[in-house]
Amino acid sequence: MLLCDIGNSFAHFYDGKKVWREEISGSLEKYFKKRVYFINVNENIKSVLNNLKNWIDLEKYTYFDTNYTGMGIDRKVLCIAVEDGVAVDAGSAITVDLMDKGIHKGGFIMPGFKRIQESYSLISSRLSFSLDFDIDLNDIPSNTKSAISYGAIKPVVLAIKDFAKNRKIYLTGGDGEKILPFLNNAEYDEKLIFEGMKKILKEKLC
Amino acid sequence: MLLCDIGNSFAHFYDGKKVWREEISGSLEKYFKKRVYFINVNENIKSVLNNLKNWIDLEKYTYFDTNYTGMGIDRKVLCIAVEDGVAVDAGSAITVDLMDKGIHKGGFIMPGFKRIQESYSLISSRLSFSLDFDIDLNDIPSNTKSAISYGAIKPVVLAIKDFAKNRKIYLTGGDGEKILPFLNNAEYDEKLIFEGMKKILKEKLC
Repeated sequence: MLLCDIGNSFAHFYDGKKVWREEISGSLEKYFKKRVYFINVNENIKSVLNNLKNWIDLEKYTYFDTNYTGMGIDRKVLCIAVEDGVAVDAGSAITVDLMDKGIHKGGFIMPGFKRIQESYSLISSRLSFSLDFDIDLNDIPSNTKSAISYGAIKPVVLAIKDFAKNRKIYLTGGDGEKILPFLNNAEYDEKLIFEGMKKILKEKLC
Repeated sequence: MLLCDIGNSFAHFYDGKKVWREEISGSLEKYFKKRVYFINVNENIKSVLNNLKNWIDLEKYTYFDTNYTGMGIDRKVLCIAVEDGVAVDAGSAITVDLMDKGIHKGGFIMPGFKRIQESYSLISSRLSFSLDFDIDLNDIPSNTKSAISYGAIKPVVLAIKDFAKNRKIYLTGGDGEKILPFLNNAEYDEKLIFEGMKKILKEKLC
């Protein structure tokens, strides 16, 4: 049995031990005979997935209590994993959601760090730098590279802290680990979304 | 006499009464006979400006005390206008600088709101919205449009507040007025950079 989280660019798999990433179409071919429980936000692949009889869409079995409209299934499943606290998925976008005893209270979306870095280059070639996640955010920047790293990272960190107040922060996604050192009362888990899928699956089977 | 601030996209003019914007090359032709004091960050136009004998580059007369390396002349002149407090220029980029009794202590750079908005569209067409500056940043967002407006505006506001502490904030630039309502102890002045140029000019003439 495999768990699979299909995004716009890649499919992430979890076999109960490790998480890995594959090209979407290649992975469908590779595992089409396997029993796969998946969630999917990729519109282009929906009809193909409907025809894979061993692949089961967990969205059908997902019950999620919220007043928020337009929330993707991946964000819902992440929140189900968290249950109480703040769920942060730092990938191509950075989503931040508040869960209070199993109930979703709302959340917000920031552009991911790759997009932020790209924004600087698009403004001017003089602002084209790689973000430095080793920066000390308590120091006032004194050159362009630190001014950009500070300007990209600190606003995101402050917005998460301000939103979380004293609640525990659960980080996941490709850049989640990078912001962990800037946050108190936070932990990083690359397989957080799969924990949510496991919960849904357990309830379905009970 | 005219004052002129040349950026990468446009030239801004000030005649002592009002500020207006023109296409760069057109404005050079239009005002080449006039006495114009200018600052310029646009590399492409440097040699042309050198040949306009009525146009005087104020950068030559600008003394600015800082340990920051790589600071553009426009940011320096804005800081000269402020002298004590936080200078924020919210344009294609958002620059934030700390001035302490005439001495520059450093600063940072965030992408401007147009770029941030564009970043969302590049991540997914479902995130393609105009930012809503009438949003209440104390409410937890409950739909995608507010989640994006909150995620674009709140991190910027928090980063400026955190940096300014109790110091006065001086806003300028096309988007400066939009964030004014979210900040205490702040004021907006579209001609702030020209106030800096006037100071430099006054010292040059004395």
